[in-house]
Amino acid sequence: MSYRANSMVLGVAEPPVAEAQSWIEGRTFPPDRPLLNMAQAVPSYPPATELQDHLAAAVHRTDASLYTEILGLPALRAALAAHMGETYGADLDARDFGITAGCNQAFCVAMSALAGPGDEVILPAPWYFNHQMWLQMQGVTPVPLQCDEARAAMPDPGDAAALIGERTRAIVLVTPNNPTGAIYPPALLASFYELARERKIALVLDETYKDFMPGEAPPHDLFTRADWRDVFVQLYSFSKAYSLTGYRVGSVAGGPAIMGAIEKIMDCIAICAPRIGQEAALYGLGHLAGWRAEKRDLMQTRTEALREAFRASNCEYGLVSSGAYFAWVRHPFSDMDSAAVARMLATDHNLLCLPGGMFGPDQEKYLRLAFANLEADRMGEVVSRLSASGAGAA
Amino acid sequence: MSYRANSMVLGVAEPPVAEAQSWIEGRTFPPDRPLLNMAQAVPSYPPATELQDHLAAAVHRTDASLYTEILGLPALRAALAAHMGETYGADLDARDFGITAGCNQAFCVAMSALAGPGDEVILPAPWYFNHQMWLQMQGVTPVPLQCDEARAAMPDPGDAAALIGERTRAIVLVTPNNPTGAIYPPALLASFYELARERKIALVLDETYKDFMPGEAPPHDLFTRADWRDVFVQLYSFSKAYSLTGYRVGSVAGGPAIMGAIEKIMDCIAICAPRIGQEAALYGLGHLAGWRAEKRDLMQTRTEALREAFRASNCEYGLVSSGAYFAWVRHPFSDMDSAAVARMLATDHNLLCLPGGMFGPDQEKYLRLAFANLEADRMGEVVSRLSASGAGAA
Repeated sequence: MSYRANSMVLGVAEPPVAEAQSWIEGRTFPPDRPLLNMAQAVPSYPPATELQDHLAAAVHRTDASLYTEILGLPALRAALAAHMGETYGADLDARDFGITAGCNQAFCVAMSALAGPGDEVILPAPWYFNHQMWLQMQGVTPVPLQCDEARAAMPDPGDAAALIGERTRAIVLVTPNNPTGAIYPPALLASFYELARERKIALVLDETYKDFMPGEAPPHDLFTRADWRDVFVQLYSFSKAYSLTGYRVGSVAGGPAIMGAIEKIMDCIAICAPRIGQEAALYGLGHLAGWRAEKRDLMQTRTEALREAFRASNCEYGLVSSGAYFAWVRHPFSDMDSAAVARMLATDHNLLCLPGGMFGPDQEKYLRLAFANLEADRMGEVVSRLSASGAGAA
Repeated sequence: MSYRANSMVLGVAEPPVAEAQSWIEGRTFPPDRPLLNMAQAVPSYPPATELQDHLAAAVHRTDASLYTEILGLPALRAALAAHMGETYGADLDARDFGITAGCNQAFCVAMSALAGPGDEVILPAPWYFNHQMWLQMQGVTPVPLQCDEARAAMPDPGDAAALIGERTRAIVLVTPNNPTGAIYPPALLASFYELARERKIALVLDETYKDFMPGEAPPHDLFTRADWRDVFVQLYSFSKAYSLTGYRVGSVAGGPAIMGAIEKIMDCIAICAPRIGQEAALYGLGHLAGWRAEKRDLMQTRTEALREAFRASNCEYGLVSSGAYFAWVRHPFSDMDSAAVARMLATDHNLLCLPGGMFGPDQEKYLRLAFANLEADRMGEVVSRLSASGAGAA
């Protein structure tokens, strides 16, 4: 017999992406029927060449191998404050921002700063699985806020108000949404802000995919409120915008109280975000606005191509919502759960996506497609493989 | 009024290194009396040039910007298993190892896999502050195991046995020790292993500084035990051995149960350690054994130089213990706490170190010097500045 493990961690489900990858482990795929891998959101293009060149030079600098300040390079925090200030039309300060090793880490440190064992946090359902996993292993109860097909995958502030109790510490929203791709309108986000302010809880907004929103309008006006630092916490990632997933760099923004708590947590779990990733983010903010806009437009063509492919087919699968990186799709099988459907698609159709069941309760009818991994001209193939797998296809 | 923060985090002390750095913020130092910065352990030399060249080429590879598996690159896990197997004379497998973003993160994920709110963990005192901080903010009670001057800074298994209760989940030891520099003999570690095995708790050994131990003998034989995976958890860092602090790469080793729990935690707080740091570690293991041995010898000359400087002076400060990276020093002021002494040394003598009080209760008589940051020929200057600050110096 051995030592015991923390039961709060043992109770958490296996990491979903790793599980899905195991379904195709060891398989090879024929050139005429390649794997369409839409399991994990990963840009289909490398970082900008000039960014790679910049990093290649940076690794020879004497400071490149050193720690940064716990909350990140001061120059990066300042550049990020300027970027967010411009995007949201707000006056923001470097001290409002902390750099983390990716947006998952930003979520973990923000939530641990806000909630402890026995507390509750309202999460949109379907949820991003790592959000639920972290809360569960920290002893925090995730309270699902339904964003189902009948509501076009949108959250309702009235529903959320009814879920707030004595132990509620925060409402988390993700926009553009993971897994549904839904983009929440500014007015809806403003309603949630008012609700959080009134009830003295935090509104935590994960904006990992903000750079892939269509158009130039600010995604919301929350940063322009005089009291935003008392209510609002923003999470962000450089991973997708600059194709830096493996470099692990993201950010968290909030008022001085939460940033002080986050600094303590970051000191323990990271000491600091990796410096070379911070250098990459700093370069991106300063030099790659054009590249970022090009990729946004590219992603928009992929979204349009996917929607068009669904419109043009008689596919039995239904496109519930789509945007930025993800599509949320209803499968046609009443007698199969979402994992069985996803495994069948992987095994028989070389199409890898994640089952809805990985995103919370009551999601067995759905699948998540990280479609933006694929180029626009592949969307027809995605829909035709789905069609070929349908109940009416045999 | 604003949202509430997690009281378990609010109760944790400020990050010590950041606080110490604030004592010298904005100051400049004359060339004839430069700052001797011994606050945070940071190698005084950059990574090997060939390692920098390797990374500069790696950033242009298409896979360089991508996620790795949650527990790290398979090739790195295999290389690390081979390295540890050779060092400890044991037969180890890639699956025994997971890659983390530094050894602090390895500690956090290992402890969260083992202990939850209300549990207890035995920590050597003085302790490494980030260990105590993480446990406290997770609601785990750190139980101090005294390693005081009277015991030559060594832990005693009998003392530890008396501290084990119903809620004890692990004993943590750090060797070479941070903050004292003490190196625990293999037989002492074997006694702790027997104790942990008997009491069905985990023995967690932080070996961040293992590469700076004198001699070639294995640091311990724990990896050679047939049942090590049921008892032992090893934490390690590539930061110091290869001068990669800012790249954030370390590791955790243990049995399949704890590695499964750690994989879930890593998925949330990191997704994976940064890939470029993993590439650096892999290169280091494969190509830099000679460089690593050179640095070990260099560090040994620094340790000897510091000890000699103390022996050769009438300094009122006493060298309690020293080794690898750190020295633990008794200050001569009965009327000043350790923070007051450390601030005085920073302000009046341009010598930055950490006060003993940052390393737990009953440590006010001591200071930690991360002396290995400095070259051997500076050790005389360190001791002479300490002497000049002494009570008898005026």
